[in-house]
Amino acid sequence: MTRVGVNGYGTIGKRVADAVAAQPDMVLRGVAKRSPNHEADSAVQRGYALYAADSDRLGEFEHAGLPLAGTLPDLLDSVDVIVDCCPAGVGARNRERYASHDVRAVFQGGEAANVADASFTARTSFETARDADTVRVVSCNTTGLARLLAPLDEAYGVEKARVTLVRRGGDPAQTDRGPINDIVPDPATVPSHHGPDVRTVLPEVDIDTAALKAPVTAMHTHSVNVSLGAAPTADEVRELLARESRLFLIPEVAGIDGAGKLKEYALDCGRPRGDLWENCLWAESISVSGTDLYLFQNVHQEADVVPENIDAIRAMTTDIPVDESVTRTNEALGVGLGGRLGEELTPNGPVTADD
Amino acid sequence: MTRVGVNGYGTIGKRVADAVAAQPDMVLRGVAKRSPNHEADSAVQRGYALYAADSDRLGEFEHAGLPLAGTLPDLLDSVDVIVDCCPAGVGARNRERYASHDVRAVFQGGEAANVADASFTARTSFETARDADTVRVVSCNTTGLARLLAPLDEAYGVEKARVTLVRRGGDPAQTDRGPINDIVPDPATVPSHHGPDVRTVLPEVDIDTAALKAPVTAMHTHSVNVSLGAAPTADEVRELLARESRLFLIPEVAGIDGAGKLKEYALDCGRPRGDLWENCLWAESISVSGTDLYLFQNVHQEADVVPENIDAIRAMTTDIPVDESVTRTNEALGVGLGGRLGEELTPNGPVTADD
Repeated sequence: MTRVGVNGYGTIGKRVADAVAAQPDMVLRGVAKRSPNHEADSAVQRGYALYAADSDRLGEFEHAGLPLAGTLPDLLDSVDVIVDCCPAGVGARNRERYASHDVRAVFQGGEAANVADASFTARTSFETARDADTVRVVSCNTTGLARLLAPLDEAYGVEKARVTLVRRGGDPAQTDRGPINDIVPDPATVPSHHGPDVRTVLPEVDIDTAALKAPVTAMHTHSVNVSLGAAPTADEVRELLARESRLFLIPEVAGIDGAGKLKEYALDCGRPRGDLWENCLWAESISVSGTDLYLFQNVHQEADVVPENIDAIRAMTTDIPVDESVTRTNEALGVGLGGRLGEELTPNGPVTADD
Repeated sequence: MTRVGVNGYGTIGKRVADAVAAQPDMVLRGVAKRSPNHEADSAVQRGYALYAADSDRLGEFEHAGLPLAGTLPDLLDSVDVIVDCCPAGVGARNRERYASHDVRAVFQGGEAANVADASFTARTSFETARDADTVRVVSCNTTGLARLLAPLDEAYGVEKARVTLVRRGGDPAQTDRGPINDIVPDPATVPSHHGPDVRTVLPEVDIDTAALKAPVTAMHTHSVNVSLGAAPTADEVRELLARESRLFLIPEVAGIDGAGKLKEYALDCGRPRGDLWENCLWAESISVSGTDLYLFQNVHQEADVVPENIDAIRAMTTDIPVDESVTRTNEALGVGLGGRLGEELTPNGPVTADD
């Protein structure tokens, strides 16, 4: 049993904590949090041992009636791996602290690549992370692009990928984010940093990215073009991608026209928090013109890196092969959407869904 | 065991179906749906018997790979009560059909009051619905207002209630609703229909309402003023309202500043679909100036009527007292938010929640 702690119990941290707790070969020793707010309350409701990340704020937890198991150093002394889910940049400042407690650390994609020995997705970098002391799980967008480009590169060769990322402005609970009525080039310089970040896990792939942000909270949307080294049919590409366990091809018959209905479907299927751990690709958007592939995919910024964090822990601490780790993670979480409709990947005609 | 069917498996219908299935004294015989879309797929995934609401569209279900148990008349022949969750106005057209199958019917608040023998909330109208053949559960906003005004009227007398309703433009999955960048008086005439609708369940209460709609999807927000027949302190009002099982007083220490964090908290607490069955009142907004009470409350338009539908079924078909029905419904669903923080209704001072 790998003993795991989570430092930072926000959007990513609480999901990673639940995912660790769901693995039969891991034990969640506790979570560390700065503020005694509603998220800390929900951690206690879930029965997680709660540690104060900031020892100056113990009184606030007491005032809020939230019982503490200790402070962050206590948690670090009791685990094999700490997953750092602090806001971007804070992880780098925590790095030495983790090392001084002789604890392996997983960082998130908001940190610079040099925060860790290796950058990671399970699809591209499992062996690279073997026995590493520190690993950085790449960001949600980079994870989504790597999962898509890796099988395309293996099957056809990727000559060049060109992607426009229409990013969500903030997460659903972030009342202080924007824009509220604009689509903002962000950064206005092209290419954006996302392309180089993909190359931390797929070094041979040539990719340029342009990024915007929009007044939505549910998901990121990618408009993807890939110039391939071959000219497959669209159906061949669909079949290739449908074999990837962390890609969900949205069947046209489902009547899912955007992130709202995607999240609705996830909630209706009983997914915790409506999480979409898979890339969500519109099956009918997959088109090939010569050697040029086009498609739309959505990435759930709160969720797609969660199974990757689990696989990163296994890569660092065990000798389990990648396929077995991914299968274990998928089964413990329930990765793999579709139901009956999931079998309808190439519907024969349009179906009205208007009730 | 009361045998229940649900006609219309959309936003309300799927939630009512789950709630019926969770009751130890009810059995869900099936759900009827017009389109074989992602919601129909999720019904099959949940193991619900699926009936085609429109017998002209059987081929579409077959094409989508969704197995049918029959059509709507088959469902009506197998239940004691049908809960109509069709779009507003469709319920009135279904009324005769239900009567011809000798089935009791529960309608939703989108229908006119005269669709049924009685309008209903459990807090105000349980006995009125006894043995009725048809009952209308009032709308989400009316339910939220009635739950608030009933205890205030009993404790202090309501001289006059004046409420501004800032309504959500559409539900999260409704990509075709607006506004997208405006706050629209809707209707522009004052008072809106909500005040008269409250009087279908609280006939003696004097209430005027003004309604707007805003570019949000998560919840409705009410800005409430009530001129009382007495002059309680704000703390006395808080204590009164905290005793109501379907009112959740949001403690200031929780750091919940809007609908986004409310939904986040509900999801973190494991609520299905992040549903908030309770009115959500900001505890610190409860203020009294002389005999004038002010407060803000949020109403989850997808969820607050769900426990009311369950109680309506019990009122129509059993002799169970109101308190027992409400307790059974609350326990089966898990109504009652708060955790440790819920005990902190009158925090002594501000707590920063900024991580």
